[in-house]
Amino acid sequence: MTQVQSPTANTDRYQRGWQKLAEVDGHAGEQVIESLKDIAPDLARYIIEFPFGDIYSRPGLDLKSRELATVAALTALGNAQPQLKVHIHGALNVGCTREEVVEVIMQMAVYAGFPAALNGIFAAKDVFAERDAKAMS
Amino acid sequence: MTQVQSPTANTDRYQRGWQKLAEVDGHAGEQVIESLKDIAPDLARYIIEFPFGDIYSRPGLDLKSRELATVAALTALGNAQPQLKVHIHGALNVGCTREEVVEVIMQMAVYAGFPAALNGIFAAKDVFAERDAKAMS
Amino acid sequence: MTQVQSPTANTDRYQRGWQKLAEVDGHAGEQVIESLKDIAPDLARYIIEFPFGDIYSRPGLDLKSRELATVAALTALGNAQPQLKVHIHGALNVGCTREEVVEVIMQMAVYAGFPAALNGIFAAKDVFAERDAKAMS
Amino acid sequence: MTQVQSPTANTDRYQRGWQKLAEVDGHAGEQVIESLKDIAPDLARYIIEFPFGDIYSRPGLDLKSRELATVAALTALGNAQPQLKVHIHGALNVGCTREEVVEVIMQMAVYAGFPAALNGIFAAKDVFAERDAKAMS
Amino acid sequence: MTQVQSPTANTDRYQRGWQKLAEVDGHAGEQVIESLKDIAPDLARYIIEFPFGDIYSRPGLDLKSRELATVAALTALGNAQPQLKVHIHGALNVGCTREEVVEVIMQMAVYAGFPAALNGIFAAKDVFAERDAKAMS
Amino acid sequence: MTQVQSPTANTDRYQRGWQKLAEVDGHAGEQVIESLKDIAPDLARYIIEFPFGDIYSRPGLDLKSRELATVAALTALGNAQPQLKVHIHGALNVGCTREEVVEVIMQMAVYAGFPAALNGIFAAKDVFAERDAKAMS
Repeated sequence: MTQVQSPTANTDRYQRGWQKLAEVDGHAGEQVIESLKDIAPDLARYIIEFPFGDIYSRPGLDLKSRELATVAALTALGNAQPQLKVHIHGALNVGCTREEVVEVIMQMAVYAGFPAALNGIFAAKDVFAERDAKAMS
Repeated sequence: MTQVQSPTANTDRYQRGWQKLAEVDGHAGEQVIESLKDIAPDLARYIIEFPFGDIYSRPGLDLKSRELATVAALTALGNAQPQLKVHIHGALNVGCTREEVVEVIMQMAVYAGFPAALNGIFAAKDVFAERDAKAMS
Repeated sequence: MTQVQSPTANTDRYQRGWQKLAEVDGHAGEQVIESLKDIAPDLARYIIEFPFGDIYSRPGLDLKSRELATVAALTALGNAQPQLKVHIHGALNVGCTREEVVEVIMQMAVYAGFPAALNGIFAAKDVFAERDAKAMS
Repeated sequence: MTQVQSPTANTDRYQRGWQKLAEVDGHAGEQVIESLKDIAPDLARYIIEFPFGDIYSRPGLDLKSRELATVAALTALGNAQPQLKVHIHGALNVGCTREEVVEVIMQMAVYAGFPAALNGIFAAKDVFAERDAKAMS
Repeated sequence: MTQVQSPTANTDRYQRGWQKLAEVDGHAGEQVIESLKDIAPDLARYIIEFPFGDIYSRPGLDLKSRELATVAALTALGNAQPQLKVHIHGALNVGCTREEVVEVIMQMAVYAGFPAALNGIFAAKDVFAERDAKAMS
Repeated sequence: MTQVQSPTANTDRYQRGWQKLAEVDGHAGEQVIESLKDIAPDLARYIIEFPFGDIYSRPGLDLKSRELATVAALTALGNAQPQLKVHIHGALNVGCTREEVVEVIMQMAVYAGFPAALNGIFAAKDVFAERDAKAMS
């Protein structure tokens, strides 16, 4: 309803964003978008357009570095556990190793304290177990 | 005065940490350590030993990724501007480009909001100007 | 036991606060107060007296604006999900629309990042569902 | 350089955002955008497009409520003093009274503590003095 | 103007709070209160009444422990440097040693990271220098 | 695998840390360490060596004050509920009374807001109930 942009415009950023979201977050990203459809569909659209269509689609920094930086920031902030898990998946999806993910989370003990690092590691533990279970099934 | 560890032990971690601090932060790091000497010398020692002697000396994640992750986290937390500047220097010292630093700070708009990203960019602007001035002198 | 104020004094602020709490938070507010009775009854009293008896009872800003501001702040801080839900109820109780609540939460993507906004929206989704279920029963 | 969207698209959101930025923040907003031109011009563009072109241009919540919510959130977060000042100006620019601004900042004592509220009030004090000085000149 | 409580009531809490403020923060506390007089006099009154008249006047925890806890919390939060300095003065005023203040700040490296601890130590360094200068004059 | 320190060195800090961890956190601390063994064993080692072997083993501040300061900081930060519970246990283990723990948490309403204090009290309520249940069995 607040969609005042030219359809072409949205199509561009939206499609580029949707592809990037699928590349990085896979099914987990789609689920987040889906869960917003009935309450805040425009927030879903903005997430596709701005973080993924604009930021993650930029040259100048590779996707692996972008995901590690996001895992670092969300571990340090410590108030967005579900999104941290989505991006630990994302980091692994774009080619980071589990060791790299663990290292960047551990490093946050230095900048945000040991509780933040611990809770980040526990999020990684859940994500790794989830992926192991899926790989086995 | 609370130095109860065996001298050998400290020598190892301390020397490894001191070398890593010099490699990453150069003169800026030494100044921080120096400024603690009269009030909290043991905090200076811990900074050399734990973040630099233990964490930054670990294999498993390259120094460039470590510094970008730290720049991301300090930008997102937004309450440690002096340390953010030290690590923007650090990122550049270990081989990150200015573009990579700007990209990782901009990305924080997504995870910690535009004010955090803006203040990170202003810190980078100061650091870049400082380095340009030095290069010219 | 630490009740050293004159009874009259407490009666004034306490009664005004209790009425305001009932007006804004209804049953949910009373439950929070009740849950403190055995462990920190004075904290319950302070909550009634200061936020509700002093702050929310002030002229100069209408209750709807106060509740939207609280929803904004708790979404941005991101570390008090139960209280955010209480105040989403509160905002609706004092006359805000669901759309206004969703808008103010979405806006926090700009100031505290998308994860904070997302978690705020999910809190609103729970609150709206709770109210729908109640309306149906 | 990363401007891959159709020019029409950008023109729409960008122009709408630029007008909203001028309406809300006036000269202060333009200065922030200007200060980014040499280091992160795309961040300047995103600020115009997303917060102002997308979010502040939405129906569903009036501009006064949006600005009060932003003042509340930035006071509570406490780590973006320059942006808080810009938005105290913004709140006054779109029709909020000084009393309303003071009230919403004071209320943050409840949700983010007295130091956050105090530092918000000191920011307001600076902004009010600045506007008084301008009115006199 | 929003002073709707009975004068007796205020007199009790206010006087108790004022005495406690003077005991803990001395002249620095009075200056904060003074600086609020023209913009938010009721916030000044609330600071005297709630933190000092209610909380700091409670039995159950001695003043030294209360001040050390406040120094710990403000160091960890990292977004209220002026208030941290006021409470480092406060801790020393009620009998904590400089070593205890330094120890509690250093400990925050564990819970909020090294930058928070560093900035806390630099605040302490300023406070100690201020007191030394005063002692000499 | 990244264990490059001399065995003697680690033995000293590690053993001192392990004893301190047992003294403060008892079984809960050991469980945290155990849970890290398969994913980040070096983080477990760092927790034993730095917070417990270095910081908590320092003279200059008694263990009761250290634990109260930690409870204050974790309540104020509000993003590490599991660690807050571990340290409420810790405070009681080293001799703090339940009243002191409740007082220090309540005080955080002043510095980090009422929601942070409330969530701290609810953590204390869980811990007290757990200890009562254990005492009865």
